Amino acid sequence: MTNFFNIKKINLDSKARTGILKTNHGIVETPAFIFCGTKATVKGVLPANLLEANTQIILSNTYHLMLQPGSKIIADSGGLQKFTNWNKPMMTDSGGYQIFSLGHGSVSEEIKGKHISEKNKSLLKINEEGATFKSYLNGDKILLTPEKSINIQRDLGADLIFVLDECTPFNVDKKYTEKSMNMTHRWAKRSLESFLSNNNKFESKNGSAGKQHLYGIIQGGVYKDLRKIACEEISSYDFDGLAIGGSLGNKKTQMYDVFEYCSSNIKDKRPVHVLGIGGLDDILEGVSRGFDTFDCVTPTRIARHGIMLSKIKKNGINFNNSLYKSDHSPLDIEADIDIAQNYSKSYIHHLFKSNELLGMSILSIYNIWFINNFFKEIRKSIEKDNFNVFKKYFLNNFN
Amino acid sequence: MTNFFNIKKINLDSKARTGILKTNHGIVETPAFIFCGTKATVKGVLPANLLEANTQIILSNTYHLMLQPGSKIIADSGGLQKFTNWNKPMMTDSGGYQIFSLGHGSVSEEIKGKHISEKNKSLLKINEEGATFKSYLNGDKILLTPEKSINIQRDLGADLIFVLDECTPFNVDKKYTEKSMNMTHRWAKRSLESFLSNNNKFESKNGSAGKQHLYGIIQGGVYKDLRKIACEEISSYDFDGLAIGGSLGNKKTQMYDVFEYCSSNIKDKRPVHVLGIGGLDDILEGVSRGFDTFDCVTPTRIARHGIMLSKIKKNGINFNNSLYKSDHSPLDIEADIDIAQNYSKSYIHHLFKSNELLGMSILSIYNIWFINNFFKEIRKSIEKDNFNVFKKYFLNNFN
Repeated sequence: MTNFFNIKKINLDSKARTGILKTNHGIVETPAFIFCGTKATVKGVLPANLLEANTQIILSNTYHLMLQPGSKIIADSGGLQKFTNWNKPMMTDSGGYQIFSLGHGSVSEEIKGKHISEKNKSLLKINEEGATFKSYLNGDKILLTPEKSINIQRDLGADLIFVLDECTPFNVDKKYTEKSMNMTHRWAKRSLESFLSNNNKFESKNGSAGKQHLYGIIQGGVYKDLRKIACEEISSYDFDGLAIGGSLGNKKTQMYDVFEYCSSNIKDKRPVHVLGIGGLDDILEGVSRGFDTFDCVTPTRIARHGIMLSKIKKNGINFNNSLYKSDHSPLDIEADIDIAQNYSKSYIHHLFKSNELLGMSILSIYNIWFINNFFKEIRKSIEKDNFNVFKKYFLNNFN
Repeated sequence: MTNFFNIKKINLDSKARTGILKTNHGIVETPAFIFCGTKATVKGVLPANLLEANTQIILSNTYHLMLQPGSKIIADSGGLQKFTNWNKPMMTDSGGYQIFSLGHGSVSEEIKGKHISEKNKSLLKINEEGATFKSYLNGDKILLTPEKSINIQRDLGADLIFVLDECTPFNVDKKYTEKSMNMTHRWAKRSLESFLSNNNKFESKNGSAGKQHLYGIIQGGVYKDLRKIACEEISSYDFDGLAIGGSLGNKKTQMYDVFEYCSSNIKDKRPVHVLGIGGLDDILEGVSRGFDTFDCVTPTRIARHGIMLSKIKKNGINFNNSLYKSDHSPLDIEADIDIAQNYSKSYIHHLFKSNELLGMSILSIYNIWFINNFFKEIRKSIEKDNFNVFKKYFLNNFN
């Protein structure tokens, strides 16, 4: 834990800060974005292209990898980095989010009014011991406990790992949220004990023993008093980092309120990760409250649907639109990555009209570059003490 | 035409030869393989990765591109190379193969016993004027004539282009094949006249006027006398290159017989292209008869189905097989391309089990490298006058 996170500079007019996460696979300059490589790959993007797009760190999902190929296979291969040929920092989540979103339905499904049928529910039971779910691959009943999640993440061997939590959705009441939060706290304690008990002696061929860093997760839903309790409880344990999880409400103002509840109750200098947030405006609000890292599937998922991120268009640029059929100008004349100059809007439009994989790859690389460049600008503005000016200017132009 | 093709070396003990095709976008060392980039992209592979895999030249399909995005869009963008960011030699076919295979069913569909229902037939009519077909995108009736095919290929702007032919399938009789071949000859003449009439003055924004090279196509099915007539007829025109098209029979011996019929009747020193052949053994038989270039979808298509090419396994290595689940050895320890060393068999198996796009990209790059390396070895063996030894050794180990 010592020296894992160094704060370099705290902005004078906000809590925004720059820092450095030191991992076994290199450093991460914060604030930073963590890209989603769910099944041990950022979909359709080679590691060389992730590097070209200035990527610092990616995230894989324990839930998916424990089912396919299985954590022992990855341990035997030498760990996630060796397995994927991404020799830079990596994070794994605990498996909780996917299990619970498969049970409750994800936040986005709730918002869109979709209902998960009983038949499709794969979460079978949650109790003190852990969560029992049905494998989406073969229907096997699987029990995931806090200890198992830690040991699976040991085998995967990522640099930053997470405790198992119950990720409560938006539609549950305060009573459920509180009860769930309290169990999450007991699970956090069990996770940490499991982690510390074998941190230096865990037998895995991936060589990560003693080199991983564990994050605790702050739950509490949209409730101010619960978030305060969660911040204090999770902060009281010897985690290397803290993460903000669970429901952040169903509108932006509620999300920013939750950010504030957490920010005002995190008193120490551990790195703070925000789970599942990728909106540019939301990132700026998070950074201004002293949060250091963010992860989300959005930048690469929308790329696969033909949407390129933009500093001025909140919904991005949709290349499925026939507006781009004859627009032979480069993707982004101002971007300092070759693909932005080498490919035209008309070509990307053509690739999406033709259902060609390459369109997904090119836009994914662009969106990754875009987010990394956005964070670079954030860091620069903090270093120069004008983050608030940068934030205000950006949000004024972002419609 | 002058200086378009230079023969460097003819093997002493076969007709195998090395040469150089000089195009407006660089040279192609022959014998060479031409990879399939049907809709203006080699599926899932960035041009930078094509280069890394030593690719010399790729092929796009007129039939697909005339429908989407349309040849004028590509002309206005500056031509296929500019459009695709592949700034090296390119070939386009005439559109004939796709139209006729949609009408008759392709050779592989015949072999597999599949029948095209009347409903799905998109070929509506073939007569002296040309072929009328139904667009698979919007049902529009479209007439493709030899002259139109040339003009569309002008707009696309590839370096090597083809005359429109009727690509007769395996299941038609000699009478039909002969009648069809004679029409193909009249179409070849019309194509050439159209080409020569506007070769230097064709108005297109792609700058290819006067810089394209036209290939005539030799038909005649599996019939020795018809192939002789076709060779003589097509050779009598001022084409820059000659191509062997149409049915090559339904077994390898019949294919090699057709190779022989053509080889013995091509008397001059123009480059010879073989359409749609990609089997390693078939390529060796073609090279030994003095053929210079080959194209086929196979190397990249099988890659997208999880199959890696191999020098010793005729059916390749199938990564869908659970044999590779725990095999952490590199893809190919002997290959001098990074991806063959950086990715393990277990990782590729995982990507295909997980339906991840990256598996398709990595194996496509590998198979492209493999074929390019195979041709490099062929060229080397010809230069060293031991092509026949190379061929015999290779075929002995290829099972």
